[in-house]
Amino acid sequence: MSVHEPLRAAVIGAGYWGPNLARNFRSSPDWDLVAVCDLDVDRARKVVGPRSTVDVMTSTAELLARDDVDAVAIATPARTHAPLALAALDAGKHVLVEKPVADRSGAARQMVALAAERDLVLMVDHTFCYTPPVLKMRELIAEGALGDIHFVDSVRINLGIVQPDVDVFWDLAPHDLSILDFILPGGLVPSSVGAQGADPLGAGQTCVGYLTLPLPDGAIAHVHVNWLSPTKIRQMVVGGSRRTLVWDDLSPQQRLTVYDRGVDLGQPLPDRTTANVSYRLGDAWAPALPEREALGAMVAELAASIREGRAPRTDGNAGLRVLDVLETAARSLGDGGRLTPLGATTTRPEPELETVV
Amino acid sequence: MSVHEPLRAAVIGAGYWGPNLARNFRSSPDWDLVAVCDLDVDRARKVVGPRSTVDVMTSTAELLARDDVDAVAIATPARTHAPLALAALDAGKHVLVEKPVADRSGAARQMVALAAERDLVLMVDHTFCYTPPVLKMRELIAEGALGDIHFVDSVRINLGIVQPDVDVFWDLAPHDLSILDFILPGGLVPSSVGAQGADPLGAGQTCVGYLTLPLPDGAIAHVHVNWLSPTKIRQMVVGGSRRTLVWDDLSPQQRLTVYDRGVDLGQPLPDRTTANVSYRLGDAWAPALPEREALGAMVAELAASIREGRAPRTDGNAGLRVLDVLETAARSLGDGGRLTPLGATTTRPEPELETVV
Amino acid sequence: MSVHEPLRAAVIGAGYWGPNLARNFRSSPDWDLVAVCDLDVDRARKVVGPRSTVDVMTSTAELLARDDVDAVAIATPARTHAPLALAALDAGKHVLVEKPVADRSGAARQMVALAAERDLVLMVDHTFCYTPPVLKMRELIAEGALGDIHFVDSVRINLGIVQPDVDVFWDLAPHDLSILDFILPGGLVPSSVGAQGADPLGAGQTCVGYLTLPLPDGAIAHVHVNWLSPTKIRQMVVGGSRRTLVWDDLSPQQRLTVYDRGVDLGQPLPDRTTANVSYRLGDAWAPALPEREALGAMVAELAASIREGRAPRTDGNAGLRVLDVLETAARSLGDGGRLTPLGATTTRPEPELETVV
Amino acid sequence: MSVHEPLRAAVIGAGYWGPNLARNFRSSPDWDLVAVCDLDVDRARKVVGPRSTVDVMTSTAELLARDDVDAVAIATPARTHAPLALAALDAGKHVLVEKPVADRSGAARQMVALAAERDLVLMVDHTFCYTPPVLKMRELIAEGALGDIHFVDSVRINLGIVQPDVDVFWDLAPHDLSILDFILPGGLVPSSVGAQGADPLGAGQTCVGYLTLPLPDGAIAHVHVNWLSPTKIRQMVVGGSRRTLVWDDLSPQQRLTVYDRGVDLGQPLPDRTTANVSYRLGDAWAPALPEREALGAMVAELAASIREGRAPRTDGNAGLRVLDVLETAARSLGDGGRLTPLGATTTRPEPELETVV
Repeated sequence: MSVHEPLRAAVIGAGYWGPNLARNFRSSPDWDLVAVCDLDVDRARKVVGPRSTVDVMTSTAELLARDDVDAVAIATPARTHAPLALAALDAGKHVLVEKPVADRSGAARQMVALAAERDLVLMVDHTFCYTPPVLKMRELIAEGALGDIHFVDSVRINLGIVQPDVDVFWDLAPHDLSILDFILPGGLVPSSVGAQGADPLGAGQTCVGYLTLPLPDGAIAHVHVNWLSPTKIRQMVVGGSRRTLVWDDLSPQQRLTVYDRGVDLGQPLPDRTTANVSYRLGDAWAPALPEREALGAMVAELAASIREGRAPRTDGNAGLRVLDVLETAARSLGDGGRLTPLGATTTRPEPELETVV
Repeated sequence: MSVHEPLRAAVIGAGYWGPNLARNFRSSPDWDLVAVCDLDVDRARKVVGPRSTVDVMTSTAELLARDDVDAVAIATPARTHAPLALAALDAGKHVLVEKPVADRSGAARQMVALAAERDLVLMVDHTFCYTPPVLKMRELIAEGALGDIHFVDSVRINLGIVQPDVDVFWDLAPHDLSILDFILPGGLVPSSVGAQGADPLGAGQTCVGYLTLPLPDGAIAHVHVNWLSPTKIRQMVVGGSRRTLVWDDLSPQQRLTVYDRGVDLGQPLPDRTTANVSYRLGDAWAPALPEREALGAMVAELAASIREGRAPRTDGNAGLRVLDVLETAARSLGDGGRLTPLGATTTRPEPELETVV
Repeated sequence: MSVHEPLRAAVIGAGYWGPNLARNFRSSPDWDLVAVCDLDVDRARKVVGPRSTVDVMTSTAELLARDDVDAVAIATPARTHAPLALAALDAGKHVLVEKPVADRSGAARQMVALAAERDLVLMVDHTFCYTPPVLKMRELIAEGALGDIHFVDSVRINLGIVQPDVDVFWDLAPHDLSILDFILPGGLVPSSVGAQGADPLGAGQTCVGYLTLPLPDGAIAHVHVNWLSPTKIRQMVVGGSRRTLVWDDLSPQQRLTVYDRGVDLGQPLPDRTTANVSYRLGDAWAPALPEREALGAMVAELAASIREGRAPRTDGNAGLRVLDVLETAARSLGDGGRLTPLGATTTRPEPELETVV
Repeated sequence: MSVHEPLRAAVIGAGYWGPNLARNFRSSPDWDLVAVCDLDVDRARKVVGPRSTVDVMTSTAELLARDDVDAVAIATPARTHAPLALAALDAGKHVLVEKPVADRSGAARQMVALAAERDLVLMVDHTFCYTPPVLKMRELIAEGALGDIHFVDSVRINLGIVQPDVDVFWDLAPHDLSILDFILPGGLVPSSVGAQGADPLGAGQTCVGYLTLPLPDGAIAHVHVNWLSPTKIRQMVVGGSRRTLVWDDLSPQQRLTVYDRGVDLGQPLPDRTTANVSYRLGDAWAPALPEREALGAMVAELAASIREGRAPRTDGNAGLRVLDVLETAARSLGDGGRLTPLGATTTRPEPELETVV
């Protein structure tokens, strides 16, 4: 329970995710939800609900001009993130922005720079990083329970909304990439990215996609995202030299399992005709996980980072690392899937940011 | 029940798979198991078992010289497949050979050619093509129940035997590739292959591997093979324009499920701001599958193809198509995973085949 | 979307279930939530939330005296249901009451009678009867898809709150019994009830319980309720002469499956040494189910029944049938589990109802 | 590997289970399979297979007269177990008999007495007691990992063979009861038995059955057996004061799970309005289990008990305890399911045993 006066928040965007943010700001002792803003006033009013004194607004300019708003949460289409966030930072507001942090890394770099300049918090809503399984995964990896990481295989597939302006990588992979960034000891810094994909529907967007990310010391991460799967799978396997962890987010009973099984490599035999390999076939273990809504923890972290004047977990730089992978993936896709070095200068000229406020 | 005199079989190799072949030849009304041959006489004797008059032999030359053997089944290491099969064909025996058909495509081509020349059956033991789920998948695809194939995603992972001379692609992917060859309307003829992999153990072999195979009309197949997974997964999703099929081979209750769900693309909207997409969220359906051992059906097909003087399902050419993909994958792996055209002339000179007989 | 003016509701009880009712009244176009009432004002205020004009009250008497309340929803401990409901009906309010409708059948009969006398709706919140799987089960059974019902086996086990004044039958079995009442063609009218149970903890209450309910034509229903199970199971099997249905409420992918499998009995053979039995091993089928919150459908049904002046689904009589089974089960438990006829006059004198208002 | 000369076995009965016994005797280093005996010579020959010198016989009298047979395994219908076993013991053979040990307890007592008199081994094939999960369950319970046993719930349901002369209790419950006898610290000695059942098909036999067995200290065991279920379930939950164990025998990945969760009862509170109950929500743990065929371990135990002149695990008395429960269940079924004391003298006169040899 907070001992502070609540901070005052406003949510911009009353579409798919905005109502969830609004609900969590409302039920948090850290926050007072002041307003919900959307071009569609009825949609905003529906989020606020009947018999409420939370304000409903349609102008972000008016919202940002208010004195009684400490932070805004931006839950609008990706291409509007940067202009809205820059305007909000410019107006002195702390900013929480949906993933992806922006629709291109140049814009995200501007956001990060402006937040630093104004000494404001810029946080990305990498929601999964606030869920109990991901927090436990990070903890287990950090304490060495898995040993060195050998491979990560992540699958995120379901019947998804084929979108006109975003492909399946930009829609779904930010989840996997932000989790990798959060749990890997050194963050998400692959040397290169390979991407393969298909658009079998002729939708004009990649609907089935695969990412390969070589990690240090010969390890590898792989991500499968798919909008065309009739079954929903949310599974990540993190294989280590000591133990291997399986996160099955849809399992009703056991979402996280740690297997004390694996392959150990001994000294190579002189003749190389048989590998000196041994197997551990030990027990499995499923740590108890607390039941807690991730968004509740996320808005608490936002409040704490503002009060303590520090970067939040999942700050703008985390969003930027995700974006760099996505942009490199797009280049790999154009080069037959070849592993493509990260951080190669993009030749695409940065367009002027649209003014949406 | 067969009305013919049984054909006479011998099994060469009493290691991992040979005993299964021997057991199925013995219990088949189509076959009389005459001999089991292995350099290790005790291992061969153990396959034959006590109180049996089946011969135990250690010399393949002596075996192939016998008049009372119609067919030999070769279940030895991959690099010995070609020399043994060529010797057997040369001795006038029909040949069943374990997957992969040979350790390089040049040798496999020689085998196919010699079998054709001598008018003998050359069959590859693509066991999965004789299992009830795969037979049903082929049938459903052939009759159009899925519509056009949009994507295939196959996962075959477990704690596997890291092998000194074979990587995870050559060890596990022949299963996936032979199934694809069997169920896809036009067989396995991708235009190119991309392969990514890792050897995080430093085992000297790829232990985690991913294959991407572009298919006609914008479709894609992807295969994940992994020796380092603590959990065993055998799952294939075949997405089509009408329905999507999920094969979970380890599900105790429901191995095959057909989903009447998917995404339909209508005419593109003029403004391209929203895609004209609709969703089908229909029922799922799990066809009843007979309980039958695949190897029993396989040895029956071998007998039938010999008697009818025809090519068996899963003939030498099927084995060859699998080998071509594996060899192309190896080249892609050396080129950063880039999609590599199939059928490019291999520059590797064909060495003389070892003489093992 | 409703075309009527919203009806005005108040929720009494802000404990475990009241907040769910409040949330659904608030988000329903049929309803305007006017007040939440609880002896603990902070608990009530927490349900209402900040920046809300919904009233927070602590006196049910004051609440029932208000003119601007059409219906009250009672989510208080079971022993207070009857006095509160009778007072509310007496004050001219329609009543929705949590399960069990009352803590004894005599009290429930008074409630049913008073509602009828005043021409008010008395509805029991048998929530499961408004969930998509149960609605589909009812529909399938009604249209004859299962044929005659042969058996029902229901399991509802989890780590539960051992309660001081309610045993596991009264806590959990109302769910199973109300579902049976809803889906069985003739409602829940077993000829007798058998109950077995144990209190291995020495908690003073049965914590593990089993109910047996003979149904017409040799059929049987069985219910397993358990507070001590570390895993949560919510499963009901309904076996019929034509097909059998399995409802696994916690399955993330497939909650309802209809099996075209079963046993058919032909004419008895003259010698009786072998039964003339045949098996159907057909396909399984999983009907698509809409995603919908049951409580939303429930409050809509409450509004509709009030407007149309008719009995709601899950009316007071449904609650009474459940109560009759529970009371008979208690008698069977005292008689070594013997099947005990329903409807035997209870000898327990009806105490005066407590006055809680 | 055995250092003894193999013992010589014969199998009587070549129906459903006999072939499995024959296969395990053949592949065991402890045994030499000498003969298979069945009235149907073709069926016996099929078990022996081609190119074998194992004898095929049709006369049990001739078989029992042979000097070169140390032990016989009886896999015939239940009503013939006693006469065959008595004849075999009389001929000086050790006896392994399928479950149930006999079709009535009086006959089983004769078998136990004769084996003791002749100093021969009488073993019952309670196969599950030789499986890795059951062995591990016994070990965990014996070492106190679960604490005091509070409840056991066992479910064994599938589409079964409705049999003309055996009901579902006699067909399936011997498995559950023999497991209980094996894992419970004091064996299977309930004070009484309650049984409920139904024959909704009109098959002349109970097809759906429920057993309740009160155990010492307020604990309870319950068994659900069912021939009419379209899905196969093999699940046993053993709840203890310290931990609870779930055995799901059909789970492909995790057959045994130990949950460190439960309910603890503290001192009763003075007012009894709230129970002083606390919950443990700890981790789950899945012990690694060896892969081993139970029948192999079973025939090894038979050989060891013969060589060591000791009672085998799962001896005739274990079979008798199972039979006593089954007979008491039949009486309870006739008394409306009431808990019926075990060991009440059966009034049924013991008929003369049929002579089948």
